[in-house]
Amino acid sequence: MTDMQFEKIALIGIGLIGSSIARAIREKGLAREVAISTRSSETLKRAEELGLGTSYHTSAAEAAEEADLVIVSVPVGASGAVAAEIAVALKPGAILTDVGSTKASVIQQMLPHVPDGVHFIPGHPIAGTEHSGPDAGFADLFQGRWCILTPVAGTALEPLARLRLFWETLGSKVDEMEPEHHDKVLAIVSHLPHIIAYNIVGTAADLETVTESEVIKYSASGFRDFTRLAASDPVMWRDVCLHNKDAILEMLARFSEDLAYLQRAIRWGEADKLFDLFTRTRAVRRSIIEAGQDTAAPDFGRHIKGGN
Amino acid sequence: MTDMQFEKIALIGIGLIGSSIARAIREKGLAREVAISTRSSETLKRAEELGLGTSYHTSAAEAAEEADLVIVSVPVGASGAVAAEIAVALKPGAILTDVGSTKASVIQQMLPHVPDGVHFIPGHPIAGTEHSGPDAGFADLFQGRWCILTPVAGTALEPLARLRLFWETLGSKVDEMEPEHHDKVLAIVSHLPHIIAYNIVGTAADLETVTESEVIKYSASGFRDFTRLAASDPVMWRDVCLHNKDAILEMLARFSEDLAYLQRAIRWGEADKLFDLFTRTRAVRRSIIEAGQDTAAPDFGRHIKGGN
Ligand SMILES: NC(=O)c1ccc[n+]([C@@H]2O[C@H](COP(=O)([O-])OP(=O)(O)OC[C@H]3O[C@@H](n4cnc5c(N)ncnc54)[C@H](OP(=O)(O)O)[C@@H]3O)[C@@H](O)[C@H]2O)c1
Ligand SMILES: NC(=O)c1ccc[n+]([C@@H]2O[C@H](COP(=O)([O-])OP(=O)(O)OC[C@H]3O[C@@H](n4cnc5c(N)ncnc54)[C@H](OP(=O)(O)O)[C@@H]3O)[C@@H](O)[C@H]2O)c1
Repeated sequence: MTDMQFEKIALIGIGLIGSSIARAIREKGLAREVAISTRSSETLKRAEELGLGTSYHTSAAEAAEEADLVIVSVPVGASGAVAAEIAVALKPGAILTDVGSTKASVIQQMLPHVPDGVHFIPGHPIAGTEHSGPDAGFADLFQGRWCILTPVAGTALEPLARLRLFWETLGSKVDEMEPEHHDKVLAIVSHLPHIIAYNIVGTAADLETVTESEVIKYSASGFRDFTRLAASDPVMWRDVCLHNKDAILEMLARFSEDLAYLQRAIRWGEADKLFDLFTRTRAVRRSIIEAGQDTAAPDFGRHIKGGN
Repeated sequence: MTDMQFEKIALIGIGLIGSSIARAIREKGLAREVAISTRSSETLKRAEELGLGTSYHTSAAEAAEEADLVIVSVPVGASGAVAAEIAVALKPGAILTDVGSTKASVIQQMLPHVPDGVHFIPGHPIAGTEHSGPDAGFADLFQGRWCILTPVAGTALEPLARLRLFWETLGSKVDEMEPEHHDKVLAIVSHLPHIIAYNIVGTAADLETVTESEVIKYSASGFRDFTRLAASDPVMWRDVCLHNKDAILEMLARFSEDLAYLQRAIRWGEADKLFDLFTRTRAVRRSIIEAGQDTAAPDFGRHIKGGN
């Protein structure tokens, strides 16, 4: 039990992210009431079975009523509709935030619906797994990870400080950033890697000269790493692509340009160029491990856990 | 202690792969003598400190003398020179094999040097980590992994069976394949993933709009997965690119074609196409997990091991 930070929190959307937040709130006792709402009755039922909140609602507006903190955790393409639905129910002084993987588009969709007196502070926890739904969440998902807030112009300091503290209590370090800059950063660190992973897995599945069963058998030589990202939720990633188009296309162009250069070095057997390209990338891995953002164990520690 | 399978085994090259084989031989008692040779005196000294063999040689030929099984574990570009060096020392009836990540080129380099009466059976264990050198090896690296043998025309059955048994004793499942087919399969399951990983890490490091420290901080959102492969040994991967050029260029062309299609779908906001592309890849991940070639734990189980 830490401090009770909010009287009532409403969680709109209770998948991987929403349910991880719910578990962390429960574990740390951060709110007296936790109202949960989700689109489908199946997911809502599951959330109730898991005891993720204190009340369960098919109506998002009903869940949001009287809440001091409302956290929207739905695919980014649904943010606008959710904001429109809950707008009337939001109480003055409430903090409204989200966890969407793109920020400029979410702001564009949600901000017009936000009533005066409600503090809208968009956010994005840089944490996740390839699984989704309320069963996939866990309380320490945000532990040691960053959470980026992208406050809009004129955001009051006190609610911002409260939201920062909330994420810090969940174990996160908090950064603030311009939404457009967030979208560029995430395009390279998250969106491009996922798109590339989806693409390579698709390419492998389509080959005529190599069978799918061969790809699967020998996947431990590198390919399997990409299949994890490529197993992520297709709705979430469709929405990310649709809602961060410009930044993603910019990064894709850079990636393809660099790949053409590398490809040419392979074609012409330019040994020194290849060696240089393959050398400078090692330092990045080292820095990530030093920053506590990945395990130092070889092979992500998979060997250690017996057989894999 | 399993059965003593060989009187004397010679290991030429004692990095990640060679030293993992050495440890497995020692653990299972597969040979009375294990002669180790490596290019540098530093690595040889380290192998001796680690007690990886029973004798240590600066000369590869000296190590190979009287050996029943000679395993060459050096970067594929060095295979020809090593074969030339040890040729005179190989005893009639000996099995000569390698572990190189490409096979047609290795055969082309080594076969001309193989004396009559020596059984040359090229091989490739589909197992590894991003680390290298004699300290990086471990005995169960090959446990549950495939080992591909690519016997040349006219290979005798008895030595082939002995080599198969050897790898099976190390915990591997053994497959046989044409060298050219091996090179195509590995181009898609291993070489392309590594090249793409090196490339994306390079692209990220070169951006002007996003700093390297941002890339590192937020890498848990996808990027970090690529940095593991991109931290692999540059000499090994330079050699792979130089020695499996055609198959790699073929796979790169397919990959780029598919990426152009995906990019176009993003540019034109083709939601259904994106959803379809992102849906069909999930089954591949499931199959890999079912085949025992990756862990089922979310995020490769990194969360489970505290904080990461
Ligand atoms: N997964 C990650 O790694 C990750 C990391 C950081 C941020 N995010 C962001 O977090 C948000 C949620 O992702 P998640 O991984 O938690 O997803 P998830 O596990 O698939 O859960 C999605 C939630 O949103 C609801 N939902 C889906 N479509 C909806 C729609 N059209 N209208 C209203 N509600 C809808 C679902 O309701 P039903 O189940 O009832 O249909 C469910 O409650 C996304 O914006 C994503 O970009 C994800
Ligand atoms: N790493 C993997 O994941 C993996 C997986 C399957 C197969 N393979 C293949 O296994 C082989 C060895 O890889 P590894 O990971 O064990 O490499 P490693 O850890 O870097 O060790 C390389 C070994 O080869 C020696 N060597 C390097 N350059 C040489 C040269 N020009 N001439 C003679 N010897 C040389 C090194 O000697 P010194 O240290 O004394 O200089 C060392 O003993 C490569 O062909 C690779 O393609 C690797």
